[in-house]
Amino acid sequence: MIPVIAIVGKSNIGKTTFIEKLLPEIISRGYRVATIKHDVHGFEIDKEGKDSWRHRKAGAACTVISSPKQLALIRDIDHDAMPDEVLGRFISDVDLVITEGYKREPLPKVEVYRSSMYPEPLCTKDDNLIAVMSDKPLDLGAPCLGLDDVKGLTDRIEQLFLAPRQMDTLRLVVDGELVPLKPFIDTLLKNAIKGMTASLKGCANPHEIEISIR
Amino acid sequence: MIPVIAIVGKSNIGKTTFIEKLLPEIISRGYRVATIKHDVHGFEIDKEGKDSWRHRKAGAACTVISSPKQLALIRDIDHDAMPDEVLGRFISDVDLVITEGYKREPLPKVEVYRSSMYPEPLCTKDDNLIAVMSDKPLDLGAPCLGLDDVKGLTDRIEQLFLAPRQMDTLRLVVDGELVPLKPFIDTLLKNAIKGMTASLKGCANPHEIEISIR
Repeated sequence: MIPVIAIVGKSNIGKTTFIEKLLPEIISRGYRVATIKHDVHGFEIDKEGKDSWRHRKAGAACTVISSPKQLALIRDIDHDAMPDEVLGRFISDVDLVITEGYKREPLPKVEVYRSSMYPEPLCTKDDNLIAVMSDKPLDLGAPCLGLDDVKGLTDRIEQLFLAPRQMDTLRLVVDGELVPLKPFIDTLLKNAIKGMTASLKGCANPHEIEISIR
Repeated sequence: MIPVIAIVGKSNIGKTTFIEKLLPEIISRGYRVATIKHDVHGFEIDKEGKDSWRHRKAGAACTVISSPKQLALIRDIDHDAMPDEVLGRFISDVDLVITEGYKREPLPKVEVYRSSMYPEPLCTKDDNLIAVMSDKPLDLGAPCLGLDDVKGLTDRIEQLFLAPRQMDTLRLVVDGELVPLKPFIDTLLKNAIKGMTASLKGCANPHEIEISIR
């Protein structure tokens, strides 16, 4: 299951700006990230007069634009889809999903808060917060980090949700000595071992592989 | 399997304009239609400065905008996805898919042709055409219809690909006499019979149910 973390906060507090800072940090550590923007009011997308826009205007319930590097889909929906549904139907091949909004959903949350804008934060201790990004110390039962501390938050996200990725670190110890490996050999060994063990019972999606030969 | 029909033709022949005329006719007969626009050059979508646009610029591999009436998704892809893949991963709950483009795929095709613009059509008799929409008679091994004859083309699409929908017509004949039914009773009878037979062996996805009681 792909982990989902909701970035929440009161109106205009800077959620999108915060996500713009957070994504590059997470991505720089080698993860693929998807985002879901919860838009309760509805939105306009696509450009008037484009072929896909014309298809929709002519009544297509769903229009996909497919090109070799980017794919877009715009479709009718008859209800407010929650992240689990969006994830199940439309998102795959990422390590993490960050949502903007969905403050009422029981997701792990990060609140962005500025005391200069609002006297009180949005969330309480009951809100399943994993961190609060704030311009002043707040006790909401989760670590309180500075508004710009995207490294600190990414550390926490990695620790809580992305630990299995650490399986991408291979350590080869021979006769008690750690053997340094060039990237090519490191990748070759990892892929060969993962490939050979993946079809064994219970090994389809391992968090850790340990092999010792004596 | 949802049927897919490709609308093809040479550059600027009017494929999008034709689809704009065709969709309302198909939809007026009660079908839900999705479209796929094949864009070999890549495209711009979304509006600069919008939250979803900012998520993508910040590196999100995939961004979904979810509202109660419309959902949009924009994602990276590393290859030119063919309709089968797009359909399997992103499209459901429609009766028919119309593509604009994909002229090299082995799909049932409709060519849009204007002799005033090109001396020759795009397709040959080997191209799996189900119809040609043309301003002059053409023999390409498929019916040749007038450029505006969307009713004729929709008849043909229904006959070839959408016949199972005719199972939505219920006829009740008692003692040789057709019994007229109010919509509520019609729906009740259809749903009850479909529901009761659906779990029987070989009845999961029927095209026609006939019951006679003597």
